[in-house]
Amino acid sequence: MARKPSDTKQFYQYFDIPNIGNLSAGFPHPSFFPYDHIETKIAKPDRFRKVPSDECMPNVPSYLENGEVDRLSQSIGDLSTVLQYGTAQGYSPLRSFLRQFTHEYIVRDIPYLDGPDIIISCGNTDGFSQVLQLLTNTWSEGLDDVSEREGILCEEFSYTHAIQAAEPRGLQMVPVSVDADGLVCIGPGGLEEVLAAWDTTKGKRPHLLYTIPTGQNPTGTVASMKRRKEIYAICSRYDIIIIEDDPCWHLNYPSAPRLEASARGIPYSTKRQENSFPKSSGIPYIDGMEPSYLGLDVDGRVIRLDTFSKSIAPGCRLGWITAQPAVTQSLFYITEASTAQASGFVQAMVAQLLMGSQHAAKSEFAQKSQEEQDTFTNWDFENWLRWLEGVRGRYESRMNRMCAILEEGRHIQVTHDSPTQLFTFSWPRGGMSVWIRMNFHLHPLAGEFSGPALAHAMWRFMLQKPQRVLVTPGGMFSPTDKIRDERGWKYFRLCFAPVTEEELENTSRRFVLGVQAFWAINSRVEVEEIERVDPFED
Amino acid sequence: MARKPSDTKQFYQYFDIPNIGNLSAGFPHPSFFPYDHIETKIAKPDRFRKVPSDECMPNVPSYLENGEVDRLSQSIGDLSTVLQYGTAQGYSPLRSFLRQFTHEYIVRDIPYLDGPDIIISCGNTDGFSQVLQLLTNTWSEGLDDVSEREGILCEEFSYTHAIQAAEPRGLQMVPVSVDADGLVCIGPGGLEEVLAAWDTTKGKRPHLLYTIPTGQNPTGTVASMKRRKEIYAICSRYDIIIIEDDPCWHLNYPSAPRLEASARGIPYSTKRQENSFPKSSGIPYIDGMEPSYLGLDVDGRVIRLDTFSKSIAPGCRLGWITAQPAVTQSLFYITEASTAQASGFVQAMVAQLLMGSQHAAKSEFAQKSQEEQDTFTNWDFENWLRWLEGVRGRYESRMNRMCAILEEGRHIQVTHDSPTQLFTFSWPRGGMSVWIRMNFHLHPLAGEFSGPALAHAMWRFMLQKPQRVLVTPGGMFSPTDKIRDERGWKYFRLCFAPVTEEELENTSRRFVLGVQAFWAINSRVEVEEIERVDPFED
Repeated sequence: MARKPSDTKQFYQYFDIPNIGNLSAGFPHPSFFPYDHIETKIAKPDRFRKVPSDECMPNVPSYLENGEVDRLSQSIGDLSTVLQYGTAQGYSPLRSFLRQFTHEYIVRDIPYLDGPDIIISCGNTDGFSQVLQLLTNTWSEGLDDVSEREGILCEEFSYTHAIQAAEPRGLQMVPVSVDADGLVCIGPGGLEEVLAAWDTTKGKRPHLLYTIPTGQNPTGTVASMKRRKEIYAICSRYDIIIIEDDPCWHLNYPSAPRLEASARGIPYSTKRQENSFPKSSGIPYIDGMEPSYLGLDVDGRVIRLDTFSKSIAPGCRLGWITAQPAVTQSLFYITEASTAQASGFVQAMVAQLLMGSQHAAKSEFAQKSQEEQDTFTNWDFENWLRWLEGVRGRYESRMNRMCAILEEGRHIQVTHDSPTQLFTFSWPRGGMSVWIRMNFHLHPLAGEFSGPALAHAMWRFMLQKPQRVLVTPGGMFSPTDKIRDERGWKYFRLCFAPVTEEELENTSRRFVLGVQAFWAINSRVEVEEIERVDPFED
Repeated sequence: MARKPSDTKQFYQYFDIPNIGNLSAGFPHPSFFPYDHIETKIAKPDRFRKVPSDECMPNVPSYLENGEVDRLSQSIGDLSTVLQYGTAQGYSPLRSFLRQFTHEYIVRDIPYLDGPDIIISCGNTDGFSQVLQLLTNTWSEGLDDVSEREGILCEEFSYTHAIQAAEPRGLQMVPVSVDADGLVCIGPGGLEEVLAAWDTTKGKRPHLLYTIPTGQNPTGTVASMKRRKEIYAICSRYDIIIIEDDPCWHLNYPSAPRLEASARGIPYSTKRQENSFPKSSGIPYIDGMEPSYLGLDVDGRVIRLDTFSKSIAPGCRLGWITAQPAVTQSLFYITEASTAQASGFVQAMVAQLLMGSQHAAKSEFAQKSQEEQDTFTNWDFENWLRWLEGVRGRYESRMNRMCAILEEGRHIQVTHDSPTQLFTFSWPRGGMSVWIRMNFHLHPLAGEFSGPALAHAMWRFMLQKPQRVLVTPGGMFSPTDKIRDERGWKYFRLCFAPVTEEELENTSRRFVLGVQAFWAINSRVEVEEIERVDPFED
């Protein structure tokens, strides 16, 4: 017996010998697990189609207008399995469900026989960290030659935690420009230019692209299908692995282009966008989505990261990685020696939520009383999509509210000339936040202070009364010092997810009033005073 | 704003500004979490003091003889917090509980001001992997010079997954001999010798020791206090960090030495062992434990790994790491960029199990009706210890049963001479398994087959009818090829945890009968036939 992971796995086959007395596994006997029973009350999948606002808070029964309770009871089955050691691939029923769901609704056009495989992860931060372990070599400044340093292409503004995960491995983040359709391919700062003009004395030419295609964080763009094809072609030519991080896959906003155009008095074409799937799934919600890079992946160069953080709850720490089987197999070994597996508790609870009593025949269901039907646990593909679409609808409405308020308040009449535009932004096509660029060069004190100094003063000013708004400075999403210093300071990210809808409305208003008040400041002393005030002061 | 982890953490302080409208956090609003309520039925802490056998299976209500239900109901509180993004340190109430528990019952003698700190992990495989990331540099054969290769000292037989985790980093496992008191310090193959005689042309002298002090896996030894002090002194001298992996901390078996001696007709001294804590905790169960290395850790060189896998359930994937604060702080950054945090679901469920309604005054409790008291959720330090001791008692009884059966069956009368001893073993002082060494050199066919060939044949023979027993070959616990080839093949690990008590008895008997039957084989052809039989065959 050797001690390679594959041999351990091979050893497990003997567990299946009929009637074997298994004295080999270091598994505690299930009678020692102190949990006898776990029960949950979960939302009905159509909660957000029936409830007009997000007043329903967790731990509070959610009642509809007619008094009907908006939830289901579930007992978590199979406890002795899920509380035991499991395999690194994940709890088998959940894995099957997710594999099929990914194939049918996310990938759609399976580009190779049997399609990509999946492995359960502890969410996308874990997933990305595992992929980096698999595909990159660490590099240390001073110790290793700079020509050996590996790099990761990414959007010019990107997710903070992804940047942080790459840093301790000594990887170079290589930003690529972004426009309304996603990563720029051709032209200044575009993918093609960055790769063609690569200077190998500054590190190896990157072999990885980290991209957030839907509701890019922080910019809110959704890459069009046309653009995805162009990007894939370039990656194919330069042999680049695409890491597709898609936590907001389900949060795209079809109303955004129309409402944005309408708010700005610009004509809007209603013709069908080119970026839809070539064939219809029959579900308009799905057909309105842009395709995963996996659907184009004839080379097997795409690794997709999915998570339940934005669709169920971040506290799950549960997600899945989809890629060609050779990649998921390698990730299996990394999982085995790091997290071992995602928590069985959570896998069981999410499996039960998603699948419920799928096995019960529909005819049986019809025979049940109303009360029984109400407590029947019947999420499945269709209901899971219904839930996702319901969540999407609520976030879309939040996005629209915030953008409408920003739209109204983004001008100020300083003189009798045309009004000053304080900031510009696009209505996000997906995701959870609005990315605004401030026109600090139009501030009355632009000659007295540097742009970054004004940006910092405005951020501090926002914390103070009566504004009392915390927004994230663009520097936090700048993958390099250069971008942070040159342009990052101009931006703020405003997230419309964390507060209630009512708070969202008030806070967005306080923000635009705050920007206007900041623009009304015209003495140097006043700006200096802002930096001295303790924001915690009442 | 820069983008170091510490700055992200610094940014979080602004979340606490009173009445702040927080548009910065990318947190989904809790109203979108589909879980309204989670309820569990858990064991009463004294389940194993009252129930005489382990017949109570999960998902089946456990009734005592008088008909009383042996469990409690709990509602998981604070759902909107635990389902949200949390910090990498862990859920704050759970972290406080575990920190205090570790200080009071595991460390006991706090060696420096404020004592070690803790960080929640996803179990000990995750914990060990994070510690390796923190404290080792990777090494690649062929690319890096052999003198740069780092090493990890470990017991001569060690935990498979730990060995596997070190392998992909190119670390050299450096085995140290083990005797009944744990790692050997002085003498051949002992810690002192290995370090003093280190040949730097074969790699760097190791700066890490990986050790399982209680119920060492697979040998079942418990390191004595005297020995721990000697090991600590050597590690201090050679500046070695001690990684103390202690999943079976609570599973020590005080009856083992006495029953072993009695079974073998050897006198047994009842005098108090030297390896107890210097001062009493007042709880005999705790006072019977050997101290953690953390209690000796004046230098701050110990990193301890604890897990709920053997005390609650492996499926938790939950544990904690205890070390000096500078180490836990560094692990915090690694956690942030890998698992992000352990699942909030599980942290909440375990917190609720361990702490219950600790806040409710005892006087209030006394006023409740019997039924209310029965459903009252009242685990706490004392009851957690009661549960652990109950579990220990059941495993101790299993260990005793298995060892008694092995003891009876380990001789065979081949001729009129003295009986042949088929195998030797020690009654384990802790853990979950018995480690037996086969005397293959005494097999009738020892002249015809090599030892490893006989070992493999016996392992196959055990799988077949009527034996039908799966045991783990010693090779799986051999940290180096050399140990596997020289000695690993002589051993088998028999775990008494995974099956029911009844199966344990039957399986152990089938094992000893199988060994005797294997010794009765005296033709070469018969052994060759064993290797040809498909073990899955009915």
